[in-house]
Amino acid sequence: MKHVYTGKTKDVFELEDGNYLLKFKDDVTGEDGVFDPGANSVGLSIEGAGKAGLKLTQFFFEKLKEKDIPNHYVDADIEKQEMKVAPATVFGNGLEVICRFRAVGSFLRRYGAYVEEGQALDAFVEVTIKDDERLDPPISNDALDMLGILTKEEYEVLKGLTKDISLVVKEELAKKGMELYDIKLEFGRNKANEIILIDEISGGNMRVYKDGKYILPLDLEQLLLG
Amino acid sequence: MKHVYTGKTKDVFELEDGNYLLKFKDDVTGEDGVFDPGANSVGLSIEGAGKAGLKLTQFFFEKLKEKDIPNHYVDADIEKQEMKVAPATVFGNGLEVICRFRAVGSFLRRYGAYVEEGQALDAFVEVTIKDDERLDPPISNDALDMLGILTKEEYEVLKGLTKDISLVVKEELAKKGMELYDIKLEFGRNKANEIILIDEISGGNMRVYKDGKYILPLDLEQLLLG
Repeated sequence: MKHVYTGKTKDVFELEDGNYLLKFKDDVTGEDGVFDPGANSVGLSIEGAGKAGLKLTQFFFEKLKEKDIPNHYVDADIEKQEMKVAPATVFGNGLEVICRFRAVGSFLRRYGAYVEEGQALDAFVEVTIKDDERLDPPISNDALDMLGILTKEEYEVLKGLTKDISLVVKEELAKKGMELYDIKLEFGRNKANEIILIDEISGGNMRVYKDGKYILPLDLEQLLLG
Repeated sequence: MKHVYTGKTKDVFELEDGNYLLKFKDDVTGEDGVFDPGANSVGLSIEGAGKAGLKLTQFFFEKLKEKDIPNHYVDADIEKQEMKVAPATVFGNGLEVICRFRAVGSFLRRYGAYVEEGQALDAFVEVTIKDDERLDPPISNDALDMLGILTKEEYEVLKGLTKDISLVVKEELAKKGMELYDIKLEFGRNKANEIILIDEISGGNMRVYKDGKYILPLDLEQLLLG
């Protein structure tokens, strides 16, 4: 297999059969040694982080498979911290699609004049472009279309999938008494040019609370699957 | 008449007849003594700035009246630096609606990975919320709707009006060999709940070039009307 990409938290290899292998690392994003899923740089390395992320990802992707929600997952080897995925191309240089159930984080920083902190939001979807240098700016469907990143029709598909997937995650967390505040997803186009969920779904992609207390991303796997 | 609001570049008075009076000041926005129409604070005072802004505003609003594009203009007294306008309420705490014909400014800062500086854009419309503290963040039509600022139908009206108005301004400038790069407009709802253009249209609202050279906002009045 051929090493094709070194990500912040994953390495990517191309396999002989046309699929790809994601190798989950123990590196997590953060700043000054503090884990922050929203940060753009690798802050520290935590033993077990890769395995916990992969376990959650496998759990959620299998739930999505059951519901016929299209995604790139093929199978996973937890011990090796590896996940096999189908090929997909990202939109432009990559988009982050966020689904919000409560007003926190960058949404609150932007629109704090119109919402209370923690106010309930009805599966609100927004898109940011992956661009560390430009601090992942938000982008409208009109701009995505004009810049040739995503057509208007594709945007509606993306928004619908994002709501469906986020509600699946929310429901699973609710079964264990946890509440999903927001979640960040990534999508791509598969060989048939269909929009599918890619990347991972783990603690690092979402903000989860239990009894009003924030759950650390690395505790999520134990609370949900332990 | 009653003083109701002190703006950065205008004071607002309520008139006996139900209309409002905008008093154009010589204060302009900027930082460290340098005029910058995009800045959020008053940087300096320039003699004649108020009169030049009002002359341009009168010129453009009268052009819009001829074309039946709804706006708040009633009449103006250039010598007194005053414009009489019909009442209107802004959306939320106010929106800025930008129409872009070339990729410069904040658009380029956000989406520079996808466009060249100065690349032509096809009357691209985007909205930011007026919020000095939060640096006027961009906002999507979905967010405007969810936050109760503007319905989806109103957004489409706003976008259409913005393109129409911006193309009128672009055309007038083109007659004098100038090119409009982008323009920032403000809208409100009148008593009949219709969306109308409010505020002003002057050098401080737009980026204009001539023979590849940026035209200083205060030179625009002379070049267009002089």
